[in-house]
Order: sequence, then C-alpha cells, then structure tokens
Amino acid sequence: MSPRTAPRPQADETRARIVDAALEALRANGIAGVSARTIARHGGFNQALIFYHFGSVEGLLVAVARRESERRSALYAPALREVTSLLELVGVARRLHDEEFSRGSVAALTQMLAGAVGSEELARGIWDALEPWTTLVRETIERLLADTPYGEALSPDDLTAAVTALFLGIELLTGLDPNGRERTPFSTMEAAAAGIDALLRPQGAATDG
Amino acid sequence: MSPRTAPRPQADETRARIVDAALEALRANGIAGVSARTIARHGGFNQALIFYHFGSVEGLLVAVARRESERRSALYAPALREVTSLLELVGVARRLHDEEFSRGSVAALTQMLAGAVGSEELARGIWDALEPWTTLVRETIERLLADTPYGEALSPDDLTAAVTALFLGIELLTGLDPNGRERTPFSTMEAAAAGIDALLRPQGAATDG
Repeated sequence: MSPRTAPRPQADETRARIVDAALEALRANGIAGVSARTIARHGGFNQALIFYHFGSVEGLLVAVARRESERRSALYAPALREVTSLLELVGVARRLHDEEFSRGSVAALTQMLAGAVGSEELARGIWDALEPWTTLVRETIERLLADTPYGEALSPDDLTAAVTALFLGIELLTGLDPNGRERTPFSTMEAAAAGIDALLRPQGAATDG
Repeated sequence: MSPRTAPRPQADETRARIVDAALEALRANGIAGVSARTIARHGGFNQALIFYHFGSVEGLLVAVARRESERRSALYAPALREVTSLLELVGVARRLHDEEFSRGSVAALTQMLAGAVGSEELARGIWDALEPWTTLVRETIERLLADTPYGEALSPDDLTAAVTALFLGIELLTGLDPNGRERTPFSTMEAAAAGIDALLRPQGAATDG
C-alpha cells in the first residue's frame, strides 16, 4: 500500500501515528464522518501525510483493519485454541464483546465493513484483513465438529461465516440499542450452546459436559 | 419529523420521491457517500426540500428506514406467521436474503445501522423502525419454543436479537466477500436448523419432521 517498500523506523512511527488517528476518528464519528481532513485533525498532522504513506484514505483504513485484526486475534488466539465446546466458544465471544466494545475496536470494524459498500478496494482489503480471525474460528469449529457425527453435513466454512456474521451483527445492533450496552443476547446464547453441546456429544457422554 | 402534521397528497408525493432518492443514494454510495447534496442529485430536486420535509438528513434516513422496514416486513409477515420449525425460519431468511440482496434494501439498512454510530437521532430512529421486524421474529420464536421444554431457559427477546444480528451480519459480510453473491452460509444453516428441530421436538416425534 505504501510507496516505500522498506520503511525506516521513523516512517514506521509516523505510519503508526496515522493509523491511531484514523481509528480514533472512526470511533468518534463513524465511517460517514471519516475523511483525510477529520483524521488529520484527530492526529494533529497534515493530511498530505495520509496520501504519502497510504496512497488514499481507503488504503489507510485497510491498514487500520489489518493492524487491529492482527492485534486482537493474536490476543484471543490462545483462548480460542483451548475451546472444546460451543459453550466455551460463545464464552470467548462474550469476553471479546465485553472487552472490545468499550475500546470501540469492533465498532470501528463494523464501520469499515459498512464503508466498504462504496469501495471495491476497501471491501477486498478488509476481507483480507479479517483472515487471522476467520482462520482461528474455522480451526476451532473443525475441532468441535471432529468428534461428532455432523462433520460431513455441516460445512466448516459456512459455520465460520455464520459465527463471524453473528458476532458482527451483535456489535452492529448493540451500538444501536438504547439499552445495548447493558443488554446482550450472550447469556441466552450460552444456554442454547450448552444445550447443543450436550446433543453434539455421543449419547453416552451427554451428561459429562 | 415533518413540519406539517397533516400533509396534503402532493406533499406526500414529494416526500415519497425524496425517500426514493435517499434510498438510491444509499445503495449507490453507502452511508459514507450520503449527504443532502448527493441525495438531491439522485432525485433531481433542490436539497432545501430535504430540510423542509424531514428537518435533517438524519430525519430523512429515519423515514427511509421506517418505510422500507414496514414495506418489507408486511411482505414477509404471511410467510413468517406460517413458520412452524427452525428450518422454515431459516428458509424465510434465505428467501429474504435472495430477494432483497439484489434490490439493495438490506444493504441500505446495514449502511444506516453503521451511520447511526455518529448520531443518537439516527440510532433511536432506526431502532424504532426495526420494530415491525423484531415483533414478527419474536412471535415466530415464541411459537417455536411453545411446544418445547426450552421456553423457560431461552429468552425470546435474546433469541430475537441473535436471529436479527445473524441476518444483518450475513448481509454485511455478503456485501464484502468477493464471492459473497454466489456463496452464503444458508444451506449449512438449514442443515443445522433441521438437526436442532429434530432435537427440539418431543422424543417420540423426532422422526416425523
């Protein structure tokens, strides 16, 4: 994305500062309020720096998506790799929601997803940026299905898409609901997950979980 | 929202034309590209009309959300009222997705949801506009749970939120995925729904479905 292929340390710092400012602008104003001007104002730098380092506002937003996706997924990877039931998967999603909602990270992502409608570059860039997440979720789902007789009937790719969609949809709605910050559907989803877990296990083991 | 409490037929027509133009602008440019100027250009009218009839661009977007939500939910209400299984519910969602995706209605809604981050008025207005849908979905879920022993453990409100979130998330992701238009997770969701349906039914009836 950058015109420089081997950026010097100082350029790295500048780029990080611009990415921070873009994330702040997204959190504060949503995608509709994000422009080179608002980002530059948030970071206190000249907007020309955005075009020099990222080529375009879209290029910058893709860099934001990539960095945040890598950081957050690295943070949750250990927990996801230990998941052995649907209930635990919902538990990680709940923790991710609780911890990230206040930070505004996921809100920034849903904002970028919405912004991608008008821009092919943004759509492809964000789709690629989501990859560390979708890989982690797919691995978890494959592990959960491995011990059940349902692995054949249910496509892990489709289940990964459904789980990702559910999580993003909850973030989108939680931001909207006047009571959303206090109220999420996670506790009922945990109850439903526990029920499905019991049914996914071989008959004899159903009461162990 | 309008300064007129009893609009004349001609004002109704003008308002409908402005709502159409806003929907077109949303479909074409996403929320990030929507302004009084772009909406007026899509409709070929003076942008002052937006402020005269809707008070603000936010007021106009709320009117778009309300009209589309009412029209679409009325169209799908008969099918939803006949749903007697989770599989059938997913089937209606799939039909809604297939039919509405090409129209761009749901895309416009997810755009507005994202735009609501920066605006309390838009957030509350769109939340209220979704009501015909959430009522229909909640009624359907209550009906599905009524014949099972799970009605106590699972909150219909939470399940309604989860179903709505899942659908909106799928729309958000489908718009992004380079192969999204051809590929959706609905067939796997139907397989999973059929499995859960069989388990929700009283033991003896499990093979009837």
